[in-house]
Amino acid sequence: MLLYPNLTQLDLTGPFEVFGRFPELDLHLVWKSREPVADCRGLTILPDTDFEHCPQADILFVPGGPGQLALMEDAEVLAFLRRQAAGARHVTSVCTGSLVLAAAGLLSGKRATCHWLSLEQLRLFGAEPVAERVVIDGDVVTGAGVTSGIDFALTLAARIFGEERARHAQLFMEYDPAPPFPGGSPASSAPALVEAVRVETAAFQTRREAVARRVAAELRGAPLPAEKV
Amino acid sequence: MLLYPNLTQLDLTGPFEVFGRFPELDLHLVWKSREPVADCRGLTILPDTDFEHCPQADILFVPGGPGQLALMEDAEVLAFLRRQAAGARHVTSVCTGSLVLAAAGLLSGKRATCHWLSLEQLRLFGAEPVAERVVIDGDVVTGAGVTSGIDFALTLAARIFGEERARHAQLFMEYDPAPPFPGGSPASSAPALVEAVRVETAAFQTRREAVARRVAAELRGAPLPAEKV
Repeated sequence: MLLYPNLTQLDLTGPFEVFGRFPELDLHLVWKSREPVADCRGLTILPDTDFEHCPQADILFVPGGPGQLALMEDAEVLAFLRRQAAGARHVTSVCTGSLVLAAAGLLSGKRATCHWLSLEQLRLFGAEPVAERVVIDGDVVTGAGVTSGIDFALTLAARIFGEERARHAQLFMEYDPAPPFPGGSPASSAPALVEAVRVETAAFQTRREAVARRVAAELRGAPLPAEKV
Repeated sequence: MLLYPNLTQLDLTGPFEVFGRFPELDLHLVWKSREPVADCRGLTILPDTDFEHCPQADILFVPGGPGQLALMEDAEVLAFLRRQAAGARHVTSVCTGSLVLAAAGLLSGKRATCHWLSLEQLRLFGAEPVAERVVIDGDVVTGAGVTSGIDFALTLAARIFGEERARHAQLFMEYDPAPPFPGGSPASSAPALVEAVRVETAAFQTRREAVARRVAAELRGAPLPAEKV
């Protein structure tokens, strides 16, 4: 499980809670060093290993969050992900973590999902964006925004360990969700609210898309977009 | 937000993710010292303050987890909670965190909830156990097991900041949950699975109840149970 500065911590802590209930899984939180890593709202988590010492993962997992932008052009991170993905049985992400996988060239031709605000950016990398909460395409399993990490991890756990054991974990976690009001996705929220969130995040999303376009162009070996020349 | 060894991290990280989206809230993770604290599955989080330096909380929050047992008889923790509760607008918990609030004498006569396996233990402290996902009784707001922390925090945020803003946070977190299979509560799970979990946890739950009985008896000023004398 990749840990990095300015991630959205629930993207990672949700799946950690699920995976942690399967003793066959030996969980590792990995970053460049073992120094504490602060999420985008100040929750600080300690990595337990670094890129050099991290064992080969069976499940490679990348969470999302605003720190994803810096990762998209971080050669050390992308090389680590490519190296791990080559030996992993499952290449996975939650939220905008899928854009980092895409930047590492790991989603080309794959169906995948992402946080709803950034879903279309997957297309820049030759991936097929799918507006579902969990998307499975062979060994690639991706979850949508933030809280979908719990659904993602239960889905993956059921594939690996069987549905009965996943239901067992679900009952321990008392995961019979009951949001106090409907909403939570563009389809289930009032159009005015969806539009308000789009407007509010427009500047950041423009920046995120510019990074994605630049990285995708470099991946394709195409000439750089004019604004960078 | 109380952080302590052997907590169940999602009890805390779920609500942190919700509360973190309200800039009016200045979140603190507090423990006896600022040394790293490992959850019961090894996720290690840094407190940002300690009991001595923690400001008065508007929302006092206690997560659950196996470490709750030690807290129940930790005079320093209980004194801190009582002191904070006296000045807090909302006294809150998720999962077995409510048993810690109860041990501090803060739930007497209150309707409250807890992880389903431990719900009945609230009765020992003169609280009324309620098998609902989120229970509000005046200034006391409690959530059921682990994942209910997200529903709990959205419910509380809606009370404080209004439903529109809570829906806004919900949409950002893409919280339109879709578990891959039904279940997750004793009522929605197969009776055989519920029974299996009860059997599997019986030894630990017996120990948890013994602690609760002892603490409750001491709180009432009653003679100690025979086994302790």
